[in-house]
Amino acid sequence: MAKILRGEPVADAILDEMKIRCGKLAEKGIIPTLVILRVGDKAADIAYERGAAKRCRMIGARVFSIVLPEDATKDEVLAQVERINKDDTIHGCLMFRPLKNRDIESAACRMLDPAKDLDCVTAASLGNVFIGRSDRYAPCTAHACVEMLNYYGYDIKGKRVTVIGASIVVGKPLSVLLVNRSGTVTMCHIDTVNTPHHARDAEILISAAGVAKLVGREYLSPGQVVLDVGINRDENGKLCGDVDYEAAAEIVDAITPVPGGIGAITSAVLMKHLVEAAERETE
Amino acid sequence: MAKILRGEPVADAILDEMKIRCGKLAEKGIIPTLVILRVGDKAADIAYERGAAKRCRMIGARVFSIVLPEDATKDEVLAQVERINKDDTIHGCLMFRPLKNRDIESAACRMLDPAKDLDCVTAASLGNVFIGRSDRYAPCTAHACVEMLNYYGYDIKGKRVTVIGASIVVGKPLSVLLVNRSGTVTMCHIDTVNTPHHARDAEILISAAGVAKLVGREYLSPGQVVLDVGINRDENGKLCGDVDYEAAAEIVDAITPVPGGIGAITSAVLMKHLVEAAERETE
Repeated sequence: MAKILRGEPVADAILDEMKIRCGKLAEKGIIPTLVILRVGDKAADIAYERGAAKRCRMIGARVFSIVLPEDATKDEVLAQVERINKDDTIHGCLMFRPLKNRDIESAACRMLDPAKDLDCVTAASLGNVFIGRSDRYAPCTAHACVEMLNYYGYDIKGKRVTVIGASIVVGKPLSVLLVNRSGTVTMCHIDTVNTPHHARDAEILISAAGVAKLVGREYLSPGQVVLDVGINRDENGKLCGDVDYEAAAEIVDAITPVPGGIGAITSAVLMKHLVEAAERETE
Repeated sequence: MAKILRGEPVADAILDEMKIRCGKLAEKGIIPTLVILRVGDKAADIAYERGAAKRCRMIGARVFSIVLPEDATKDEVLAQVERINKDDTIHGCLMFRPLKNRDIESAACRMLDPAKDLDCVTAASLGNVFIGRSDRYAPCTAHACVEMLNYYGYDIKGKRVTVIGASIVVGKPLSVLLVNRSGTVTMCHIDTVNTPHHARDAEILISAAGVAKLVGREYLSPGQVVLDVGINRDENGKLCGDVDYEAAAEIVDAITPVPGGIGAITSAVLMKHLVEAAERETE
């Protein structure tokens, strides 16, 4: 049976460290402050918001939300982004996406100050993924995959890594993060002709396609480490990942569960980005 | 024998189109204006500058250089970048790199207005490579590879592409440009364990490693299209690419020569970016 790579201990280790760093900041009179920008009342957004608030309290950071009604106009959304940019007491911002519609979302992403962009929605932050600068922030979910591998001691250097899914939120930036760490990365997506071939060939397989149980036996091979980034519902409405978990548990060396895997780390990574943003104030 | 993919006809086709678009801009009183920022008098920089100036004249654009002495300070370099940003008559800027030292170069890159960043030195422009926005500019050499494949009718969608070399100027952004066009891309680099395996498996093989004759027979397989981005000197001081050209000519379907391949297209792509920057003034 495969080793199960749970996210909780990874998140706890990150949060323990952030608590210490928050303590040091508090001595200098700085309390890391996160603002969450939400439009409407989507249940998933509210649940994530609650989790993030809890983690902020755990480490000694502040958090508040700016909530706009579902029918907010573009001007109203952008006015809030401007307010966030100008407010020196705010260290970082998380914007829930999709944000109303693509036009408003991309305008908001263009406007946000990259220094406060904790989840890599601005072009400048995305560009820093290529550059590999440590003082800007990769997308939290992509970064969570790297934290998972680090925590469980899987070296990326020289490894064959296949990433399934080429989204701008996970697949593409994650692939570059892994190349920055000297992985040999193959990027697969909906137009890839033979994804199972590339998946089987990988030593580290990461699926971020968002398709329930896409990754079956024919994608898997013995010895692999499998990260399942997908959060989907199966035919019975139950939460599941991209990977056929039962098949993987029999075949591969190690696998992240869904829920309780990568998803359990992302908000801890958000805290890490927040603390780093606040620490920059002391530089 | 492999088909030889020469860069000149590709560049000519781009320049012919840009000449027409410059004509239309001229009717509106706009003359695309390029500034080249150079520190010192490196022969290679001066040669490229001459080529770019010639191409500007061909299409009806303006060009001038700002040249600082080899011992220019950081403040002096940044003052010029600021001047370029503020000057409304300048549509685009090419900065020669490496620019003095890494500290000055990265400060200059951070300062340049992304709207004038024709060769993708700013984080925001690099980020737009992920986003795939058409109104910003990918690195000219990476973009030249895409123009080469397009001109000769090689579809990228669904193809297995291997890119050797993970630089920020070519390898990494090029890989994302190819994924944006639905290629299945594998990124190899100095820490890749078995690059020949990944190279042979590719339908389109692109080498941007900067190592003379790295890509020998064991990297090649019949049917491949090979783009050679390297510009190196062989043991006799003669210009050569990354690919063992004689071996490739026997084995693969098509190959770009060095010189006269990708390198012959980059300054035409720079002109394309310049014209696009000037056209944005009319929006």
